[in-house]
Order: sequence, then C-alpha cells, then structure tokens
Amino acid sequence: MSLTISIDAMGGDFGSKVTIPASLQCLAANPNLTLILVGDELILKESLTQALIDYPERLKIQHASQCVEMDESPSKALKNKKDSSMRVAINLVRDGKADACVSAGNTGALMATARFVLKRISGIDRPALISTLPSIHGHTYVLDLGANVDCDAKHLYQFAMMGVEVVKAIENIKNPTVGLLNVGEEEVKGNMQVKAAAKLLAASSLNYIGYVEGDSLNAGSKKIDLIVADGFVGNIALKSIEGAVKMVANSLKKSFSSNLISRLTGLLAYPVLKSFKESVDPRLYNGASFLGLKGLVIKSHGGADALAFETAIHIAEIEVKQQVTEKIIKKFEAIAAEKADL
Amino acid sequence: MSLTISIDAMGGDFGSKVTIPASLQCLAANPNLTLILVGDELILKESLTQALIDYPERLKIQHASQCVEMDESPSKALKNKKDSSMRVAINLVRDGKADACVSAGNTGALMATARFVLKRISGIDRPALISTLPSIHGHTYVLDLGANVDCDAKHLYQFAMMGVEVVKAIENIKNPTVGLLNVGEEEVKGNMQVKAAAKLLAASSLNYIGYVEGDSLNAGSKKIDLIVADGFVGNIALKSIEGAVKMVANSLKKSFSSNLISRLTGLLAYPVLKSFKESVDPRLYNGASFLGLKGLVIKSHGGADALAFETAIHIAEIEVKQQVTEKIIKKFEAIAAEKADL
Repeated sequence: MSLTISIDAMGGDFGSKVTIPASLQCLAANPNLTLILVGDELILKESLTQALIDYPERLKIQHASQCVEMDESPSKALKNKKDSSMRVAINLVRDGKADACVSAGNTGALMATARFVLKRISGIDRPALISTLPSIHGHTYVLDLGANVDCDAKHLYQFAMMGVEVVKAIENIKNPTVGLLNVGEEEVKGNMQVKAAAKLLAASSLNYIGYVEGDSLNAGSKKIDLIVADGFVGNIALKSIEGAVKMVANSLKKSFSSNLISRLTGLLAYPVLKSFKESVDPRLYNGASFLGLKGLVIKSHGGADALAFETAIHIAEIEVKQQVTEKIIKKFEAIAAEKADL
Repeated sequence: MSLTISIDAMGGDFGSKVTIPASLQCLAANPNLTLILVGDELILKESLTQALIDYPERLKIQHASQCVEMDESPSKALKNKKDSSMRVAINLVRDGKADACVSAGNTGALMATARFVLKRISGIDRPALISTLPSIHGHTYVLDLGANVDCDAKHLYQFAMMGVEVVKAIENIKNPTVGLLNVGEEEVKGNMQVKAAAKLLAASSLNYIGYVEGDSLNAGSKKIDLIVADGFVGNIALKSIEGAVKMVANSLKKSFSSNLISRLTGLLAYPVLKSFKESVDPRLYNGASFLGLKGLVIKSHGGADALAFETAIHIAEIEVKQQVTEKIIKKFEAIAAEKADL
C-alpha cells in the first residue's frame, strides 16, 4: 500500500537538520512511502540535490515562506502564519494530498492549526494526544498527554473510545483493557471528573478495568493496554517519568565514574550498559498522535534528533496503514446511530 | 533536646514486624528520643521484653484494642475505631504526650483521623502531604502529594506558605525557591486553578519562580526547593516516578542477566551497581508529613520495610526538633495580623 506523508521540515528546535536525515532514512526503509517536505524551497533543494535524484517519484518539496517559532502563541501563529511550513503541511492532509502530517513544531500552534484546518470528527468534542509509554509489560497507550487542560467526564469517555480504536488497529488486540488514571484504585478515590468518567466507562461496551495509579503507566502489577487521563494530569505524568528516567540514568553514570575502579568496571560493562540504554531510549517512543480530527497529525518532541523524528514518521506510517482516523470516524458514527435508534 | 514520638505500631502492611525493629533502631541512634508504641499490649510486650529492659525510660507501650484495616473507609474508621492504634497514637499528640505521630496505616483513615483529632491551624483550609523527592540537584520538597483531590488557587497558595516554612526550618535555606507544577513554563499554559494560583504566588512575599514542568521534580534544569501541586496531580506524579524508577531498575537487571557474559559482568560491576541502587533507594525517601494541623503526623508508605519506616521516624524527629508546626502556626498568625492591619 502506497502512502504519502507531509513533513513540517522547518519545525522543531533543529528544523531541516533533523527532519531531512530522518525523512531520508524513512524513504530508504519503506519503498511504498512518499514524503512531501514542506518549507523554504531554497534551503530544502540545496540539501536534497542528491536525494531528489535518488527518489525522483517519492520525495517532493512543497514551498512555504514562513516558519512558526517555538515560542509563538497559537493564536498568533494561526492568524499571521498562513504560509508556514506547519500550516501548509497540514493543508496537504486536508486537501487529500497527504495521508498524515508530522511536525516537531510548537505544540500549541500545531494543535490549534490542526484543529482549525482539519476540523473535528463528528461526535468528538475535544481532540487528544495519544502515545505509548514503555512498561515492564511491553508498552501502554496513554491519552490525553496535554491537548486539554480542563476535561470533564464526557471528554475522558471520548478519549477512551478513540484510544481503544488506536490500540485495536495497531496492536491487533480485540478488546483492549482500559484503565482510568487516579490517586487510588478504590471506588471512593478521586476527584469529581474521574468518578463521573468511571461511571460512563463502566456502563460502556469497553473492557474497562477500573482506576489505576501513576505507577501503572510504566510498572503496574498487570498489563493495561490503554490508560485515560485528563491532559493536565497526563502531561505532568509523562514529564515526571521523563525526569525520573533522566535522574536514574544520571545516578548510574555517576556510580560508574566515581573512581578509577568503577570507571574500569564501566568499560567492561559497556556492552551491557549500551543494551540497557537502548531499552529505555526515549527516542524510540517519540511521537504522539493528535486524535479526533478528520486527518492525522503526529507531534514529535521539539528537541527530537533524527532517530527520534524517524520514530514519529514511522508512527504516522503505521497509523495511516491501519486507517486509524477512518476507524475512529466509523466508531463515532456507530455511537451516533445507536443513540438515534434509542 | 528530648522528644517523644508515638508510633502506630499495628499500622501498615506488616504491622509490628516492621514498626518494632525500626523503632529499636531509632532508639539506639538517638539517646534523646522516647518512643510510645501504640497497639495490642500483649503482642507488643512479648516482642519487646528485652527492649523494655534496654530502654526502661525511653520505650513505652500504650495499649489500643483495635486496628484500622488497610482497606477500611476513612469514615468507618473514624466512627468505629475509636480505640485503634492509629487513633490512640494521634490522641497522644493532641494531649501533649507525644510531639509527633508516625503511622504506616491506611492513608485516608490516617488523614481523616488526624484532621478530626488534631484540628486545623487557623488560616489553613486544607492540610496537605509534603515529602522530598530525590533530584539531580539533591532533593526537592513537593506538596500536596494526595491529601486533597480538588484544590483551588487559595489552597495551592496556602500549600506554598506551609511548604516554605518546612524547607526553611529543615534545610536552613533563607528564601526557598517555589515553583508551581504545570504543563508548560509559559504564562499562557495551564488550567484555571494553576493560573489563579500563579497570580497569588507572584504577588506574595515568597520567592516564586513560576511554572515548572513534571521533569523538574527529579531532573529540572535548575534546583527548585519547593514544588506546589494539587493533591490529585501531585499524587499521580509521585506514583508515576515510582513506576518509572521501577521500570528502569527492571531493565537494568534484565540487561545484566540476559546471557552468561552479561551475568559475569554484573558480578564484576556488583559494587558499583550496589552504590547506584542505594543512590536511588526509595526507602530513603519514605515518609510524608501531614501539614496544617495543630500537631505533627507522618505518613509512612503502607508497604514500608523496617529501613523505610525508620526513615519516616527520622523525619518526625527532624521536624519536631525544627519546630515545623510551631513555625507554620506563627506564619499564619502573621498573615492574619497583616490582613487585620489593612
């Protein structure tokens, strides 16, 4: 199956220095993939002279005269940057010229622009960011990771509905387990939104297993396929985990360099430490999908390097192939039809 | 300075099997410390025959006929367990017979009981749980870790005021830096409560440095002395960090046992790995103080072992010595006086 992905080539902390090598890696890996790199034509053409010869059909450049700054406010970007690489890349999805868009640009601007250009799927009040986190059981899908800071029970319910479609499509799991992030597993625990959402989820067709605590994101007692949270909480949990992993890695490095003997031990242990480092490499988990719009947008970490950005493009490839957006649209059409039948 | 601490000897997953050895360690370490172990007299006396001879003055047993179960609802514990080891241990603080109480019992019941028995300090609407988290800069104080699930801006402001008194007293820092946990550092980010709290903090006398993200708990770009959060968010961040550390430790263990060579390397690296393990040992961070009441209560992790419970007792010793409760009372009296002057 051939597929086309638009790349916001100027987005992120490093712009085309990262997006170009990542794109070329993906083109080499997947002969069915076409990429449209969006950005300053002059800069892109100069860096892509050889690549355009190597991939005459599968590598395209789309000019965009502007660039959204990393600290620009979403509303300003939306108003003043109508020819930004981000906006044009998303337009290509709306116009059916690309199946998905990947950007490492300013998160707020990306979400506002995607929402404005692509529009919401009928039945979904708020789009949400979903990604996987590594866990001792493999990995866990989590949403919302920060698209919404004030969610009510209905939003959490819709997040669960969307997230389950992603897990089903990508992981090929028939009836994914769904947990609701909370401060305790007992029924009495939680704030009002969570308690109300628990009722909706328990009454739904989903395989809802109840409340789960923060440690379930990476190391719960059992495997949970999908964990649902308010975007405020989800984002803080995600960043807390990033910080914890960084701290532990830092401690490990310190322990292996505290004196000559430990440094020598570190040299001996290098292959093992390398394999360990790879097993918790956050770059292999880069890329959150913005769900709930009539088109797919993948948000890469702003500071992503080429390997991390490559991961984000791979996520786009998989989600396009598995028709994630189409499945969410269908699901919410079915929910609407059920309601109409009542 | 001599001080007396009451111990809920029956609380936690392991009861007196953990609380007794931890108590004896603390008595041995601090000749100024008196401990009152509260619980079933028969059980305690049997295990403490020798210890009562060793510490005739400094080890006391206070009988309590009941025990709060780990899954008992706070309201039921409050109503039906008036002679529980938890309740009696807290009563001792109220009656001036102990300077602080340490319990590994049911968190909800402990907080409800402490609130009921000790009463709030004037000016504080909600007590909060504070603890330190390890960080690449040393450690960071964080509150609220789960005493409150729905906080408004005024509550967050009061948490900051209380937390700063703790940091000042214990760390001997004159003007601790205070951050507010949020989904981004920019002013436009956050939910309504956080934005309103930011305004209160910016206008206060505190050394408020602005919003901080989740990774600042363990690995921010700069040292922050105190991070303030809603109890729902704080608890989920804390547990997420616990899970992340567990996952990384698990990966490391796996890497060092994947084959014969890596196992041999692991043996060679054992001393280094041991020192690393100690540097991130969560038991050395056990014990959260319940602030805002007219008496000090320290909550230990329910699953704490003797070393972890010992840490919680040490926290009580330090906070009594540094007169944390008295300093919070004074601070809020000063705030009230200022308001009256206006």
